Amino acid sequence: MRNALLIRSDCEFAFSTLATFHSRFLRHRSGPATLEPHPNHTVRVFLSRFCVSNTHDTIPLNPPHHQPIRTSPPTPPNMPVDFHLGPTEAATRAAAAGFAQHVLKPARAEYLQHAEHSARFQATQPTYAAAVQGGLLKGQVSPAHGGTGGSLVEAAIMVEECYAVEPSAALTIFATGLGLTPLNIAGGPQHAEFLAPFLSGKGAPLASLVFSEPGGVANALEKGAPGFQTTARREGDEWVINGEKMWATNCAGWDFKGCDLACVVCRDVTESPKPGSDPRDRVMIILVTRADLDRNPGSFEVLRHVPMPGHTSVSGPHVRYTNVRVPAKNVLCPPGQGAQVAFGAFDASAVLVGAMGVGLIRAAFDAALAFARRDSRGGAVPLLERQAFADLLSGIKMQAEACRALTWKAAHAMEHGPGDYDARRELALAAKVYCSEAAVQACTDAIKAVGITAYDSTQPFAELLNNAVVLPIFDGGNVGIRRRHMQQLMQSPTYDAWAATYGPSEK
Amino acid sequence: MRNALLIRSDCEFAFSTLATFHSRFLRHRSGPATLEPHPNHTVRVFLSRFCVSNTHDTIPLNPPHHQPIRTSPPTPPNMPVDFHLGPTEAATRAAAAGFAQHVLKPARAEYLQHAEHSARFQATQPTYAAAVQGGLLKGQVSPAHGGTGGSLVEAAIMVEECYAVEPSAALTIFATGLGLTPLNIAGGPQHAEFLAPFLSGKGAPLASLVFSEPGGVANALEKGAPGFQTTARREGDEWVINGEKMWATNCAGWDFKGCDLACVVCRDVTESPKPGSDPRDRVMIILVTRADLDRNPGSFEVLRHVPMPGHTSVSGPHVRYTNVRVPAKNVLCPPGQGAQVAFGAFDASAVLVGAMGVGLIRAAFDAALAFARRDSRGGAVPLLERQAFADLLSGIKMQAEACRALTWKAAHAMEHGPGDYDARRELALAAKVYCSEAAVQACTDAIKAVGITAYDSTQPFAELLNNAVVLPIFDGGNVGIRRRHMQQLMQSPTYDAWAATYGPSEK
Amino acid sequence: MRNALLIRSDCEFAFSTLATFHSRFLRHRSGPATLEPHPNHTVRVFLSRFCVSNTHDTIPLNPPHHQPIRTSPPTPPNMPVDFHLGPTEAATRAAAAGFAQHVLKPARAEYLQHAEHSARFQATQPTYAAAVQGGLLKGQVSPAHGGTGGSLVEAAIMVEECYAVEPSAALTIFATGLGLTPLNIAGGPQHAEFLAPFLSGKGAPLASLVFSEPGGVANALEKGAPGFQTTARREGDEWVINGEKMWATNCAGWDFKGCDLACVVCRDVTESPKPGSDPRDRVMIILVTRADLDRNPGSFEVLRHVPMPGHTSVSGPHVRYTNVRVPAKNVLCPPGQGAQVAFGAFDASAVLVGAMGVGLIRAAFDAALAFARRDSRGGAVPLLERQAFADLLSGIKMQAEACRALTWKAAHAMEHGPGDYDARRELALAAKVYCSEAAVQACTDAIKAVGITAYDSTQPFAELLNNAVVLPIFDGGNVGIRRRHMQQLMQSPTYDAWAATYGPSEK
Amino acid sequence: MRNALLIRSDCEFAFSTLATFHSRFLRHRSGPATLEPHPNHTVRVFLSRFCVSNTHDTIPLNPPHHQPIRTSPPTPPNMPVDFHLGPTEAATRAAAAGFAQHVLKPARAEYLQHAEHSARFQATQPTYAAAVQGGLLKGQVSPAHGGTGGSLVEAAIMVEECYAVEPSAALTIFATGLGLTPLNIAGGPQHAEFLAPFLSGKGAPLASLVFSEPGGVANALEKGAPGFQTTARREGDEWVINGEKMWATNCAGWDFKGCDLACVVCRDVTESPKPGSDPRDRVMIILVTRADLDRNPGSFEVLRHVPMPGHTSVSGPHVRYTNVRVPAKNVLCPPGQGAQVAFGAFDASAVLVGAMGVGLIRAAFDAALAFARRDSRGGAVPLLERQAFADLLSGIKMQAEACRALTWKAAHAMEHGPGDYDARRELALAAKVYCSEAAVQACTDAIKAVGITAYDSTQPFAELLNNAVVLPIFDGGNVGIRRRHMQQLMQSPTYDAWAATYGPSEK
Repeated sequence: MRNALLIRSDCEFAFSTLATFHSRFLRHRSGPATLEPHPNHTVRVFLSRFCVSNTHDTIPLNPPHHQPIRTSPPTPPNMPVDFHLGPTEAATRAAAAGFAQHVLKPARAEYLQHAEHSARFQATQPTYAAAVQGGLLKGQVSPAHGGTGGSLVEAAIMVEECYAVEPSAALTIFATGLGLTPLNIAGGPQHAEFLAPFLSGKGAPLASLVFSEPGGVANALEKGAPGFQTTARREGDEWVINGEKMWATNCAGWDFKGCDLACVVCRDVTESPKPGSDPRDRVMIILVTRADLDRNPGSFEVLRHVPMPGHTSVSGPHVRYTNVRVPAKNVLCPPGQGAQVAFGAFDASAVLVGAMGVGLIRAAFDAALAFARRDSRGGAVPLLERQAFADLLSGIKMQAEACRALTWKAAHAMEHGPGDYDARRELALAAKVYCSEAAVQACTDAIKAVGITAYDSTQPFAELLNNAVVLPIFDGGNVGIRRRHMQQLMQSPTYDAWAATYGPSEK
Repeated sequence: MRNALLIRSDCEFAFSTLATFHSRFLRHRSGPATLEPHPNHTVRVFLSRFCVSNTHDTIPLNPPHHQPIRTSPPTPPNMPVDFHLGPTEAATRAAAAGFAQHVLKPARAEYLQHAEHSARFQATQPTYAAAVQGGLLKGQVSPAHGGTGGSLVEAAIMVEECYAVEPSAALTIFATGLGLTPLNIAGGPQHAEFLAPFLSGKGAPLASLVFSEPGGVANALEKGAPGFQTTARREGDEWVINGEKMWATNCAGWDFKGCDLACVVCRDVTESPKPGSDPRDRVMIILVTRADLDRNPGSFEVLRHVPMPGHTSVSGPHVRYTNVRVPAKNVLCPPGQGAQVAFGAFDASAVLVGAMGVGLIRAAFDAALAFARRDSRGGAVPLLERQAFADLLSGIKMQAEACRALTWKAAHAMEHGPGDYDARRELALAAKVYCSEAAVQACTDAIKAVGITAYDSTQPFAELLNNAVVLPIFDGGNVGIRRRHMQQLMQSPTYDAWAATYGPSEK
Repeated sequence: MRNALLIRSDCEFAFSTLATFHSRFLRHRSGPATLEPHPNHTVRVFLSRFCVSNTHDTIPLNPPHHQPIRTSPPTPPNMPVDFHLGPTEAATRAAAAGFAQHVLKPARAEYLQHAEHSARFQATQPTYAAAVQGGLLKGQVSPAHGGTGGSLVEAAIMVEECYAVEPSAALTIFATGLGLTPLNIAGGPQHAEFLAPFLSGKGAPLASLVFSEPGGVANALEKGAPGFQTTARREGDEWVINGEKMWATNCAGWDFKGCDLACVVCRDVTESPKPGSDPRDRVMIILVTRADLDRNPGSFEVLRHVPMPGHTSVSGPHVRYTNVRVPAKNVLCPPGQGAQVAFGAFDASAVLVGAMGVGLIRAAFDAALAFARRDSRGGAVPLLERQAFADLLSGIKMQAEACRALTWKAAHAMEHGPGDYDARRELALAAKVYCSEAAVQACTDAIKAVGITAYDSTQPFAELLNNAVVLPIFDGGNVGIRRRHMQQLMQSPTYDAWAATYGPSEK
Repeated sequence: MRNALLIRSDCEFAFSTLATFHSRFLRHRSGPATLEPHPNHTVRVFLSRFCVSNTHDTIPLNPPHHQPIRTSPPTPPNMPVDFHLGPTEAATRAAAAGFAQHVLKPARAEYLQHAEHSARFQATQPTYAAAVQGGLLKGQVSPAHGGTGGSLVEAAIMVEECYAVEPSAALTIFATGLGLTPLNIAGGPQHAEFLAPFLSGKGAPLASLVFSEPGGVANALEKGAPGFQTTARREGDEWVINGEKMWATNCAGWDFKGCDLACVVCRDVTESPKPGSDPRDRVMIILVTRADLDRNPGSFEVLRHVPMPGHTSVSGPHVRYTNVRVPAKNVLCPPGQGAQVAFGAFDASAVLVGAMGVGLIRAAFDAALAFARRDSRGGAVPLLERQAFADLLSGIKMQAEACRALTWKAAHAMEHGPGDYDARRELALAAKVYCSEAAVQACTDAIKAVGITAYDSTQPFAELLNNAVVLPIFDGGNVGIRRRHMQQLMQSPTYDAWAATYGPSEK
């Protein structure tokens, strides 16, 4: 019985959650210059009453009973730098590790039975449903919107644990979190109906941030660029959406007829732009639900499932919207506010890509170490006595440590500062760029160290590399988008290099 | 009609050939200290009367009529350094390019229709047969043994052309060349019967150098190591072979019951070793033909086909020899001579792995450039106007140029010197190590430059990386074997760092 | 008046201090297997009553009145990961920044007036004396021995601030801390007399850990190696020391006749070693004071001052001990205990080398950014609009952030865990190796970015590189010592890779 | 007697020469699209009758009697790729090695006695004069102008030999070659008087290409940029030059009152530019002789000698031209032709910077190997038995081999093709960028391998690094200029990636 996972109901663990901190920075604000942290925001953490056992008892999935455990206080003022996990962080880690081992890992065995990636994606639906029941979706919604989102450090911890075990099935879950982030940032009470399915703990609702396009968007907002090719036109009380998108994880839903909720980033073409106008002034975000698509037969098509070398159970196909009509209430961000909110969503996810990198580097190290312990390549001494091998291994280890420390620093700074939003954002970008490239390096180093055995696909190394190689290029490619954002920050006259660590510098 | 390729018989092209130069260095010699080039060796190059057309006329494959064109003289004494291709080099390149486009590339479309790698391998048999008819096997046999092998520079040119287009189907062909290299080096007139099938220009005979073992062999020859786990025991006029091998390309033949000719590297266990003896003293090479296996039912088994992330039509399974009995005449290298000949074979192939790297880097550059010319990532200017993109691209370009120049230098030095064999060998190792690692770097850089489009498996980038990633770890892994050989050379008291470029240094 | 620095006495700041945590781990213990943190150790932090003004009033140096401010409690149990500086950390940073700007930086202008490095060293004596008066030496002695040493994170913060401004004059101060570390670790009440000068806050006493030798010591403890070439022989109640040392910072004192206190690592040659004995069994540490040398005329010679490309005011000459006689009470570590204590001292300093790297990377970034803001290389737009330049700069920035986060993590783990000593030590080694190599990379990248202006020695870039380039090779060279220690840790059967972050793994 | 070097007159050696090939490509042509090689150009090579002995006999310098030896024919049509040195190449190498050992190396001992870099420069005048007498200046003038310039491969060989021994004194010589290159390219019979001093074989005439400016010129030719800040204004039959220059090697002459011949790149400001005009249209090159300066008292000032971390005997000070009046005949390139000729000069020098990198990498390798042979770092086995050390060393070795092969390829292609000028130029740029960055890497790797001994300035390692670090940033910085030129080439619609190796591709 495929959708009956191994669950025990008599223990508790926390599903740590994707950050919702952005609402503090961005909501109800209009320009980037005014972004300031809200100092008194309280992050609430809920622990799901829900645990996955080590036994082989098959227990049907039941909705967990969420119980609030504690409200984490604001950072106490007089504590020194501290890397010890706090109780909710430790609980998050334990829960995530259990989830990874007992839910995600078996999912992989399941989906690998299918050759087509689209079929692999569909095969993960029971796993996803288990995650929903475990509170993982609610945990990706901000407490301000009724969710149980924890701290960004907790989210990073959870992502690392999942990526160290089974990145592909995990990404589908996290991608719904990314799909909900624009609502966490910019949503108001009027958007509660859109979030409701994701707070219910039932079913397998998928959300998606529908951003990328077949021709790329890295430069779509520069002066003179054509801008987003997916357009929206106001007609009376409705908006009509047309255009093609690609690489938006989860956007097509389980049946490829559309996901439950899509945040579609598009360009307002109701009126012709004024000459010399900023392309950003026309970018908007419209919420498109499955019901909206179902009302417009033929309005949504999957043009092509994109086969990928890694993350083979993830779905982010090339799709086309044709005259999708949605009511005006579906506008999450009116023209001029869409770009900021979309980029804000990617700022948060940047930290989590850092954590993905950490998870993959850790897995590469663990696998190479395990190889060294069982294999001497025909020699008289253990493989670890060979300096050339050991130096590759310790190099990977150091990358894991440096990347984790950087990711945690970025996660903490995004929520707690010091420094203004730009200073914090630079650290998030750094975590994304640095750790993603380190992950690729670490996986190729592990392959070099292990040798030809690593070319056996039943070993983890090739898959690790093929999973890692997307980190620098998805979620805002490093070369075209992330590094450009870093450059823009440095170009700012108010750039203050070390403010996110030491606070604003004295001039 | 699958095995009727597009061939035109009214033009000529050269199948450049794998090097056979080793016979000059190693044959009939016993110790590494005495390795000296034979100065008057003449390399003969034959051009096959055989050409692949651009038309769609389907012409059955016919055996080409080989015609000797010219005998390349020894290097003329008074010429300056020259990078221009000579006529046979240029012809080799043109022929290889045609072969790659018109024979190898269609083979890929064919084999990709199969999911299992073993089936993909079998699907390349018609391509392989076409190569045989085109003279590619004969071209990998030394003229001294009746073949038409050309210079090592020509071989490097041919390998680059093939690897720039379709590495996987090409490797099966080159692996037969590697399988025959021990015969090129150490074979005498008495081994003519073993080479005959590969000189016939008929059928699809496969040869294999059967070296690697499941537990690795990198350290198998150090003092105190258990040594090769595949053993041979003399019983009367026969040798009895037992043990497991893995990663030996082509070793199982088209039907997985054994290839036509295997050079099995194994350990003589007829007598117990003396304490403190050198493991090298017991290494031997025995020729095992398909007929030998067929005479011994049950003596050869494929234990597992190894799925690989790249080179998906290549077969190098985990196999077991059980009491394979062969006559004494099958001994190519008696105990004590096997290691030297096997390593000599890998010295030659080292240069060609360098050329494989060049081919892959070139393909990565060409593909990224083509992407840049058709795509602006939504921007107002061509992608190549972006410095960050352009610098990745020019970096790849420079790697291609540096690697090709190094590979040619190594190929030339191996055959023509200056310097003794050790000095030349160092350059061959350098070509292998340097270009293989550069290829991995170039492919990851291309992916970073192109961005998320590169994660679409219908684009060439992921496959390029997955092909490249084996270069540092196969054919003698860089970390465990090739770098160790470089280290041993440097440790030698007669090490003379620049002799392979400037001749022996004055002391 | 050279030794009258700009000091204001009406404000307070903290001289954060080098770690003394080792006493908790190593003292009174015999074997590495028993190293365990002492959970209840309390780190006391004192703030010096002492402040450097921004004014130009010249105030004679007076001994500060140290006042204990607070005792930092053990890490509170329920706090999440936190990167905010606590009050003593923030005060340490402010004080260190002031010290760097107002004391160290002027010192550089002073010593650069001398051409000879030995004269430069001597020219820093007033600066050193000011540091002593400011409490910097006392701050490098463990509270257990009467000092005011703070946390290792604080020490890292202080080192970063100093290295970002003036590494060379700073290193002389920190080297005394390293020279005292063996006493912090292994000292007992009987050694109080040796520490007294360093607790007085008066004068300019220099201590030195005298470890390295002209022929290197990286492999001196392996089986079969000759071992340390500096020897000690017991004669009655005395030990007689002979041999040459090199690179021991401060070892020759201000007048090159010997420093105030030297911890000389040497080999006991009183008896012939048993065959097959471990070279470690004979390593000891003997305290040699200036008084000891003065009692033995001719016993101490500087053979050569070593000119260095960076750190040009640092003194670590090639010296010779000839029949130096010291009383038995000078033995800090008897034979068999010296190596462990010496390596323990280097474990602590490893973290601080990480902080040195952070300081240099930060300085390189700041200098390159300042260049970009004042220079457009003749162009129509600011230099930071050039992607190629900006990407080098953001790369340096990311290295600074990653290295600082790693260094702090290592500093925190060394003192607070989790994990056993080996797990913590791996992080310290990682901070040393990773940050030191990153610093070299960052400085060369800054030079590449800035261009030819960086080759002007009046610009900071070349000096930054020449300072950075020692980080990987001093204080235990990465290749020969630090990486080897990492290898040994991984080889241990009890190696637990992630214990210093997540605690011991469940097996 | 300082200017009496150790010379023997009874043997011959060749001073290989800097390339003059540019005249074939650029002379008498107006636009970049028409650049084509002149196929029948004959490169003449002269060997100087002149040899440096190994004995200690002091022989006064006498002008050598140049004797033409042979005229190297055009590349023979039917030869394969060949890396053997031809006779003139081998003679060039032998001569250059002798010159480096016996002339340049003693010069270093001489100039190091001075502390000031300007004094060090002046101390090399006798060495320079010896080089002049040896034919080294004449060898840097094209045969078309009466010089004895050889092939660019020979020039690369000579530069490698000199840079492997003494880069600083060598650079002063090569910089005169760069200073003459604009004349080689664009000079006509009317410029013979300017070249005459450099063909005489007498004295110590210095030439300089005066290009760089204090504020940088990397972007000076882009639209909207202010352009070169050194200006020329036509007044009657004269041009009046004003402005500041910096980094132009040799520009101030031995007495800092001006070199013998300066090719000053400047901007015509006779008339105001038309709006939107191309800054290139106003760039010109004017020849300024010492006599010109002497006629204009006060017109030339050295504002500052630039201290540098390496190349400490090289002079390229910050200078100012004030109302320097020269006759119209001094115009080498009229407005609109200056940029092309200046960049052409740098294309040629790009290859030679590649050779400089090779020389430094080779020296770093040789020095690290020598260290390994004399030092075991206290261990029981030779240092080369340590894999970590050996891998750094073999990495340096491979970089030397790859860089030399690339440099030779670029040198050969620049003169002989195949491919059009752009295709050849890309290889020259590649040699500059790739080898310069490899040299920095190799020197830092050598330092890491050797360990703390490398921080002793009496060892060669720090100086090697400080010499290498300028290669990426001088002669057109890689980031700001060279990579930009590579980018422009790739952007061209006629870009043909592999034409300089395989000839124009078929479309």
